[in-house]
Amino acid sequence: MSGVLAPAWAGTGAEALVDDRALLTAMLATEVALAEAQAELGVIPASAAAAIRAAAVPEHLDPAALAAGVRETANPVVAFVAGLTAAVDPGAAEYVHRGSTSQDILDTALMLLCRSTLDQIVRDLQKTAGSLAGHVRAHRDTPMAGRTLTQHAVPVTFGLKAATWLHGLLDAVERVRRVSLPVSLGGAAGTLAAYQEYGSAEAALRLPDLVARRLGLAPQELPWHGVRTPIADVAAALLVTTGALGKIAADVLVLSRTEIGEVTEAPAPGRGASSAMPQKHNPVFSTLVATAARQLPPLAVVLFGSMAAEDERSAGAWHAEWQPLRDALRIAAGAAANAACLAASLRVSPAAMAANLRLTRGAIVSERVNAVLAPTLGKAAAKRLLAEATAGAGGRELAEVLDVDLPPGVFDPAAYTGLAGPLADRALARYDVVKESR
Amino acid sequence: MSGVLAPAWAGTGAEALVDDRALLTAMLATEVALAEAQAELGVIPASAAAAIRAAAVPEHLDPAALAAGVRETANPVVAFVAGLTAAVDPGAAEYVHRGSTSQDILDTALMLLCRSTLDQIVRDLQKTAGSLAGHVRAHRDTPMAGRTLTQHAVPVTFGLKAATWLHGLLDAVERVRRVSLPVSLGGAAGTLAAYQEYGSAEAALRLPDLVARRLGLAPQELPWHGVRTPIADVAAALLVTTGALGKIAADVLVLSRTEIGEVTEAPAPGRGASSAMPQKHNPVFSTLVATAARQLPPLAVVLFGSMAAEDERSAGAWHAEWQPLRDALRIAAGAAANAACLAASLRVSPAAMAANLRLTRGAIVSERVNAVLAPTLGKAAAKRLLAEATAGAGGRELAEVLDVDLPPGVFDPAAYTGLAGPLADRALARYDVVKESR
Amino acid sequence: MSGVLAPAWAGTGAEALVDDRALLTAMLATEVALAEAQAELGVIPASAAAAIRAAAVPEHLDPAALAAGVRETANPVVAFVAGLTAAVDPGAAEYVHRGSTSQDILDTALMLLCRSTLDQIVRDLQKTAGSLAGHVRAHRDTPMAGRTLTQHAVPVTFGLKAATWLHGLLDAVERVRRVSLPVSLGGAAGTLAAYQEYGSAEAALRLPDLVARRLGLAPQELPWHGVRTPIADVAAALLVTTGALGKIAADVLVLSRTEIGEVTEAPAPGRGASSAMPQKHNPVFSTLVATAARQLPPLAVVLFGSMAAEDERSAGAWHAEWQPLRDALRIAAGAAANAACLAASLRVSPAAMAANLRLTRGAIVSERVNAVLAPTLGKAAAKRLLAEATAGAGGRELAEVLDVDLPPGVFDPAAYTGLAGPLADRALARYDVVKESR
Amino acid sequence: MSGVLAPAWAGTGAEALVDDRALLTAMLATEVALAEAQAELGVIPASAAAAIRAAAVPEHLDPAALAAGVRETANPVVAFVAGLTAAVDPGAAEYVHRGSTSQDILDTALMLLCRSTLDQIVRDLQKTAGSLAGHVRAHRDTPMAGRTLTQHAVPVTFGLKAATWLHGLLDAVERVRRVSLPVSLGGAAGTLAAYQEYGSAEAALRLPDLVARRLGLAPQELPWHGVRTPIADVAAALLVTTGALGKIAADVLVLSRTEIGEVTEAPAPGRGASSAMPQKHNPVFSTLVATAARQLPPLAVVLFGSMAAEDERSAGAWHAEWQPLRDALRIAAGAAANAACLAASLRVSPAAMAANLRLTRGAIVSERVNAVLAPTLGKAAAKRLLAEATAGAGGRELAEVLDVDLPPGVFDPAAYTGLAGPLADRALARYDVVKESR
Repeated sequence: MSGVLAPAWAGTGAEALVDDRALLTAMLATEVALAEAQAELGVIPASAAAAIRAAAVPEHLDPAALAAGVRETANPVVAFVAGLTAAVDPGAAEYVHRGSTSQDILDTALMLLCRSTLDQIVRDLQKTAGSLAGHVRAHRDTPMAGRTLTQHAVPVTFGLKAATWLHGLLDAVERVRRVSLPVSLGGAAGTLAAYQEYGSAEAALRLPDLVARRLGLAPQELPWHGVRTPIADVAAALLVTTGALGKIAADVLVLSRTEIGEVTEAPAPGRGASSAMPQKHNPVFSTLVATAARQLPPLAVVLFGSMAAEDERSAGAWHAEWQPLRDALRIAAGAAANAACLAASLRVSPAAMAANLRLTRGAIVSERVNAVLAPTLGKAAAKRLLAEATAGAGGRELAEVLDVDLPPGVFDPAAYTGLAGPLADRALARYDVVKESR
Repeated sequence: MSGVLAPAWAGTGAEALVDDRALLTAMLATEVALAEAQAELGVIPASAAAAIRAAAVPEHLDPAALAAGVRETANPVVAFVAGLTAAVDPGAAEYVHRGSTSQDILDTALMLLCRSTLDQIVRDLQKTAGSLAGHVRAHRDTPMAGRTLTQHAVPVTFGLKAATWLHGLLDAVERVRRVSLPVSLGGAAGTLAAYQEYGSAEAALRLPDLVARRLGLAPQELPWHGVRTPIADVAAALLVTTGALGKIAADVLVLSRTEIGEVTEAPAPGRGASSAMPQKHNPVFSTLVATAARQLPPLAVVLFGSMAAEDERSAGAWHAEWQPLRDALRIAAGAAANAACLAASLRVSPAAMAANLRLTRGAIVSERVNAVLAPTLGKAAAKRLLAEATAGAGGRELAEVLDVDLPPGVFDPAAYTGLAGPLADRALARYDVVKESR
Repeated sequence: MSGVLAPAWAGTGAEALVDDRALLTAMLATEVALAEAQAELGVIPASAAAAIRAAAVPEHLDPAALAAGVRETANPVVAFVAGLTAAVDPGAAEYVHRGSTSQDILDTALMLLCRSTLDQIVRDLQKTAGSLAGHVRAHRDTPMAGRTLTQHAVPVTFGLKAATWLHGLLDAVERVRRVSLPVSLGGAAGTLAAYQEYGSAEAALRLPDLVARRLGLAPQELPWHGVRTPIADVAAALLVTTGALGKIAADVLVLSRTEIGEVTEAPAPGRGASSAMPQKHNPVFSTLVATAARQLPPLAVVLFGSMAAEDERSAGAWHAEWQPLRDALRIAAGAAANAACLAASLRVSPAAMAANLRLTRGAIVSERVNAVLAPTLGKAAAKRLLAEATAGAGGRELAEVLDVDLPPGVFDPAAYTGLAGPLADRALARYDVVKESR
Repeated sequence: MSGVLAPAWAGTGAEALVDDRALLTAMLATEVALAEAQAELGVIPASAAAAIRAAAVPEHLDPAALAAGVRETANPVVAFVAGLTAAVDPGAAEYVHRGSTSQDILDTALMLLCRSTLDQIVRDLQKTAGSLAGHVRAHRDTPMAGRTLTQHAVPVTFGLKAATWLHGLLDAVERVRRVSLPVSLGGAAGTLAAYQEYGSAEAALRLPDLVARRLGLAPQELPWHGVRTPIADVAAALLVTTGALGKIAADVLVLSRTEIGEVTEAPAPGRGASSAMPQKHNPVFSTLVATAARQLPPLAVVLFGSMAAEDERSAGAWHAEWQPLRDALRIAAGAAANAACLAASLRVSPAAMAANLRLTRGAIVSERVNAVLAPTLGKAAAKRLLAEATAGAGGRELAEVLDVDLPPGVFDPAAYTGLAGPLADRALARYDVVKESR
């Protein structure tokens, strides 16, 4: 599969983070780390660990054969271990996968894929944050229409809008960063018994930490074959990521509508072209991010749903996690990559913003006029007056329709942006903190 | 991607129904049918259509290049058309994709994938139905414990249980069969304008039917770029399929528990083996089907959710359909293939059923005893008596604990299977009807 | 709960279709029909059935007490039967719920709620269809911009847009209508054994049909405690309903944006008001329908997911259906009611449509110009020329930028609506058929 | 609605945490805190704030009327403010909801409901943890069969099983505790402009913190009308909660099967009764928890999906959050309450565990025998030998079938529980830390 039907990540490099080669590499790394840790503990010969490391190259294994094995044994590890064992120097074959169980290898390998993908996501989110921070600074005081329920509401600034995007994105960075990805080592049913049997109680107790350290994973407190919090934590972090990015995409899609034209994705040869319409310059990156955001929550249903599974290893719930986890990682990474391009390529039109802000001929500041009139007329009476005035304006300026004596600045949308500036500054300040941290 | 993380379909042949090659073949078939229909209508030269057909081989196209194109244009068709055009005899290049739009080609191609996959699903469901019908006949009167909320309830027969499975499966067959898969031809925004421009109003109006006929698809009433009922119908049929199969798997998983042992999947070398435990013979097919059933409903959220999309073509909702639709087809087809193996390989143990039926020492027929005692004691008093008797039996037979004079047959679980037999016969009769139909 | 947090149905009357009173009424109707059918079969005295009917008024039962019972027995029927039995003339108490099981009563009652709700939905969909048909007729030839990926694409007509809405809605009508809602009668584990025990095999076999007829439900082929196709069918029909309505809402929300202004929901006192902004006239009905469409697919995950459940009655899967089914019915009915108001209140502005159509100064017909230039320049060269011309137009008319001699009509958006008219007519013709049918 | 169809929370007290009264109380508290904070800032008279507090009693408001208002304005706050204003002393009416917007009040009120519900959940989780810790201690060394893919795998202990449950539950406690629930105050479009207009920039900037402090909520960094991370965080914490509890329920449901009988929920009069079967003692609490766990992930789809919403306030996405958030809170709180009862009422049968452990006549330790034989025979050959021995045992003891000389202890399941003990101790140690913290 090439991504030809996966606009959420096609062409982004996300695929390579979790494809079959990445998976096999991670599974091999797990077996190697296991053997080397067992050698360190004196449980197997150092030469056996070395032989296993030497044989652990993905080319020795055929994903299609492993997939066929899935149908025999309901997981790819049985065939994988057979393949690795066949590739290893015969004298070391005894020591491959010693004391281990399929879930140990697959869970740990998936944590490794999570590690590299979450790291890449953070890098791309940081890039996006940098671009957004630039927009916040450049447009801190650029007024534009605020919109609620699709209608002009009160003025905002593009700086505040971008600050809000940045704020959500920093939430995502923090949540992705705090995910802990533990090694998974339990043996057949979570007692570490075979690890003990092939070594000692003490060695078995120390083994998970040693494997974790070698792989750059967090230690496990308890074997977690049946306690899927790590998967849930990854899912939650990915959901916040695509949610935050999807918010940006949703806004860009609105603002780049032909009739609105306040932002555009910078044109590039071929980008956004149509197979039919020569004039088309579609907002591609925002479409790609939007499509990613639609797909994550349902995938997460499988992942969260698999938490409530029976037995020391379930018959179906565990197996249901694998592909949705890979898909979720790939889609979120694709969204992060595409959002970085989106943010970098965003062109802002203060002129269009200014023009749209005038579209309602003052009605967009009727909340303010209400506040100004309230002391005289009462808040409710003023609101009634303004509701009638704006409904019956018939294309005239609100200032004209209202038969009241008010300073003209009251009707200036650009003068009613409240605390947009200071709030934008706050997001920038948070950005500075998050950028430096970790 | 090989299926190494996709136990729901790995190794079943489902992949080939919807993989990149199948997709490209379907997209090419759509362009060919379009050109040939246009030639039939006199809108393009017959020689051009022939040249397009000649060039339309998937080897001319590189899925990875199309995937890269996805990131430029948010769909694979722009690059696909460029590739096909380059492959065509230069004199015919003008006539490739004439009047068409990306969505026409991709929607139609996806309908073709649905066609072949749904057909395969029906074939596999029929196989499963045949096996289940065999079980119904063989075990029409084999008594076993009925279980509700995990506890023994009243006796049933394995014939009725299998009949119930068969009933659900025939529901699925009927729902899959009645799905109508229309061609999708609308042009850039559903008006067929460019088809008209390159031909005539009359030709444009006839075109969709001609293309549909050539592809073996249903006609469209209206262009459906923005009316996604066909996708929803496919989703609903797939959901009923994996739901019905998942029910069977859930029951088999319970009944094949070590402590219950009433059914097993027939052993085969290597099947159900564990990487750790030599004695293991895991219920593989039922696990694979169960894992499929968990994944379908969330995928369908994306498909149903994309119905409510804006504009003549949405920015993200349409794009979100593609991969989940492919996944749903692949998973359902995998489930159908695995269920056929499950049903064929199922071994039934009337002895274990009989033993388990005796496990509660008569309590399993307390509903009947209640009915027998009711005329004398009143229904409620009888129920109270029996609740106390069963709670306090302490391992004794119910007949013994109760101090009442009743014919011993009343306590025979095998004699309290109600209408299990005639109901099983009904399912068989329905099977005979469905099998012959279409 | 009052609907105060349920904008999808608050205030629509949908609540009354499925609220506690409706549920209790349906459960009582089921017990009455069961008793009367048993009387008809000679299994219980006619006087007992009459006594049960006399006592079967919802006021005799306290939903809060039944809810408390849910926590004791995991379903409300045990306490319900106790309550009904207490209300019945003591001489008839024996005959209440005779041979029955909780699931028989609850499943059947829920089918009755589905019946009344689906009927109401069809009525509201028909109203909406009538309004939409009116829009199709009134605006068959009103040109407007077609939009894809948020950008102007080629012209369409509002008639075709409304026809497309109508088409989706008629799909929903057909799917809702064809749902079969069967009675559910199986006894404790689906064998009808206790019905037989309290009567005869023949009576038990006839019983379900008699109960179904009395309740206006479809007969069951087999007891379906464990075969949840009827629930899945309801879910699928509701999903197509909210999907089709959500499509309309999504479009209205776009078209009523301040900058677009092509349609509005007719103003009414207080409707669409804001707590803050006096000028606000929010598109309320479309917001309410849109919010409904977002909630249905996830609810359906529970319903479809519960198909794959273990045993004769599952421990959790069946129970998980109840509230989501009620919610789905209520939300879909609310959406249908609100959509009827939306369609009836929709004001169309051909002037705004005409103005927007001119916004791209001819670029919106570049597909057509492409087709006109293709014979001379070749399709690809023409497309390149037009892409450059539209990108570099800088506010000038396309006709002006292009240095070619073409009839001015070619640049008229209103003249490039393709087959919009005849296609709209098709939807009207289909409407006439669907309206009359059933 | 009474919970009669909501087994996930009926009768638990969860309803009162989020019902209409709780909601109105929270909305009123928000308006009061707003007024009092404005009085503190000198923006409104202290007497006005006092008058608003005096009027702020839920009895002044009718939820049904607010629900009707929802259909007029797409949210309940417009009618709510009208109702509160009418109840307030006329002299203070001016000052109600001053500068505010509907979303400020509703978001903040929902955060208050989250606050009280999450607190209650933590309390119930702590109770459950206490019971589980008791089981861990009591059964630290009670051997039982470990099960994978439904089949006996290797021995474990009930202590480790309960420790694993406890571990997942402590994960949930930590995740619920770390959720930050901020006040939501932005004004019409997130600029705080009207708060400024009715006061000063400085007052408006300080206002949110003052309101937060009065309500016991966290401060907001930026207005979050369009950045829904707080909702996502709540959803994620609830999902981990029902996931962890659902795992316990899934295991209890398996272990309490009639054929397994290793644990039971303690009997109580009426609990677990059936409407049909006198002997029934259904595992009610685990069924209730299991049904809760099935419903949460789909509800969360709506919540996560609403993150990607357009504009300063979206038309539908925000509105879609309310009821699913309430449902998710209620269901998770119900699950927590029921799980506390489940854990407290759990009866463990070491005798049944011992009997089941012997069921495979030694095959359950074949992994160990494999390890013991490996040095002599080689790991693979030993595995082959054992696979054949266990497959062909025909009811004989493994020790007997194998023609090898091994110490009998090797075949003792109770002697092959690996590190179950020390791992259980770890969970207890973690419990001690979590219990004391916060």
